[in-house]
Amino acid sequence: MKKIEHIGIAVKDLEAANKTYGALLGAENYKTETVESEGVSTSFFKIGESKIELLAATNEDSPVAKFIAKRGEGIHHMAFAVENIKVEIERLEAEGFQLISKAPKRGADNKIVAFLHPKSSNGVLVELCQEIIPSPALHEGEGEHI
Amino acid sequence: MKKIEHIGIAVKDLEAANKTYGALLGAENYKTETVESEGVSTSFFKIGESKIELLAATNEDSPVAKFIAKRGEGIHHMAFAVENIKVEIERLEAEGFQLISKAPKRGADNKIVAFLHPKSSNGVLVELCQEIIPSPALHEGEGEHI
Repeated sequence: MKKIEHIGIAVKDLEAANKTYGALLGAENYKTETVESEGVSTSFFKIGESKIELLAATNEDSPVAKFIAKRGEGIHHMAFAVENIKVEIERLEAEGFQLISKAPKRGADNKIVAFLHPKSSNGVLVELCQEIIPSPALHEGEGEHI
Repeated sequence: MKKIEHIGIAVKDLEAANKTYGALLGAENYKTETVESEGVSTSFFKIGESKIELLAATNEDSPVAKFIAKRGEGIHHMAFAVENIKVEIERLEAEGFQLISKAPKRGADNKIVAFLHPKSSNGVLVELCQEIIPSPALHEGEGEHI
């Protein structure tokens, strides 16, 4: 684990929460992104080496909608940056942590992600995030003589 | 706001949670500290520029005991490092945030702290932390000729 990548906060109204967290942090959000497969709209703020990710549901079946219906708005998950998500998943399984899904998948903010079940981490939904580093694009003619 | 100073996690059994978070983060805790005035025993782990603070109640009236009784174990608060806590409190009050107590007080880990009420920050209990920087000790004879 390298650092806290972000803290995810479930909110009802993304626009209102953007104003609140803009005022709290003294900085504007730098990006919004919708992940339809997860049923969430997200908004990101930078804070030091980490981020705050606001999460609003895009439909009633969204995990974020269910979280808010059950517990109200609040911190939804804590995400750590990892170098190699497959290595970390293997290490954590060997340590007895339970993965929600063993296969990492594409998440928001250009990441490959996986989640640990809260019951193996004291009620905390833990996300592992590996940044996707794009391969250098080969321009026409490049690499031909190597 | 400079960075995420720490994430506070309410746990029932500090010793067991120390093992869990040691395994999760791949590092031992570097400090334990009891703050009797708050009814908590704490354990700290470093992660990048931030920390994880495990919190266990020392008595049944502790805010952490009440939190766990109501919601179960999980993330209790999110703390930000600030340069000058009095200036931040004034700024945040002017922005409409509600302080739990307007007077900052001594917290764990050598900090002066203040809390924002969760109802003004989307259900998130927000802590502000200013590090206490000790004055350089004057040794005998030092400073006499200045």
